[in-house]
Amino acid sequence: MTQRIEGKRIAILAADGFEEAELFQPKEAIEQAGGEAVVVSLKPGEIEANRHREKGKAVAVNATIDAVSASEFDALMVPGGLFSPDALRKEEKVRNFVHDFFAQKKLVGSICHGPQVLIDADVVSGRKMTAIENIRTDLSNAGAKVVDEEVVVDEGLITSRTPKDLNAFCSKLVEEICEGKHAAQAQSA
Amino acid sequence: MTQRIEGKRIAILAADGFEEAELFQPKEAIEQAGGEAVVVSLKPGEIEANRHREKGKAVAVNATIDAVSASEFDALMVPGGLFSPDALRKEEKVRNFVHDFFAQKKLVGSICHGPQVLIDADVVSGRKMTAIENIRTDLSNAGAKVVDEEVVVDEGLITSRTPKDLNAFCSKLVEEICEGKHAAQAQSA
Repeated sequence: MTQRIEGKRIAILAADGFEEAELFQPKEAIEQAGGEAVVVSLKPGEIEANRHREKGKAVAVNATIDAVSASEFDALMVPGGLFSPDALRKEEKVRNFVHDFFAQKKLVGSICHGPQVLIDADVVSGRKMTAIENIRTDLSNAGAKVVDEEVVVDEGLITSRTPKDLNAFCSKLVEEICEGKHAAQAQSA
Repeated sequence: MTQRIEGKRIAILAADGFEEAELFQPKEAIEQAGGEAVVVSLKPGEIEANRHREKGKAVAVNATIDAVSASEFDALMVPGGLFSPDALRKEEKVRNFVHDFFAQKKLVGSICHGPQVLIDADVVSGRKMTAIENIRTDLSNAGAKVVDEEVVVDEGLITSRTPKDLNAFCSKLVEEICEGKHAAQAQSA
């Protein structure tokens, strides 16, 4: 990866039960490109991954949702797993935090079940995006234009389907962070 | 429980990762009232519960989705848990099976995340129902009239929110099975 993103701060929003590879692989891609990945969660301490139904590795929480605002970050990444988005989506502070990234025209990446959080943040209507097959009816009912592609970029919203798309997702995420605010978003801002 | 439901066959539709109490407690309530509970799943063998993120007890699969039709049953019950409804909702045979219970005006009970399966079966529009808080936006986007009550009965559709509602849910489920097809459904049939 030749793109460098020194000085960029990316919030990774997750809770217990995030899908292991969907947090760690983007986190490593961000850090290897020189960016700062900040794990934001509901409570301090650490959160533990799942590998589907099995328990996985833990990661340290760098900041709680109470202590952060979108204005501190250049981008947001929301991994999947079943328990993490399910816990996050019902929290008003999470919904407001996610909504603010869209209001501030900042990059947002999400994969697998992660877009469930975007549904509750009320930011998917009219957006071209993808996700794991299992939640596509919910995305479509929320107004998204759902497609079945490895990685989809729609004006700064980057989405992928499952862990097998992670290479493409991470490359596109770093590439878009490197470019900064998406041209189309900047024009409409 | 004084109501008796001898001769009634109730399909319990689940997959690995069903929430333990949400399958076993209704199953026991059905059997104690004299009914037959038939665990229907995607594959033969047994399926294993979760207790939230922990693994739980297994239950034997009595029939696979390939081998059953709604016409063989008097009612359907869909428990929650995160992995079970998530796996079921994307299977066309499951969606058709669930849809047929509604087309045949038969009783359907569901709790917690179970109603995710009803969203994909395209049967929630216009129905008064409840579910766990986390999926209420999805139900509302699918056209349901979502309320926050212990147990909701709407023309043969019985729904509850979480395991703490199981006593009320099981009582209502057995009561409605005992009564047979709901009066309002029978009238409109």
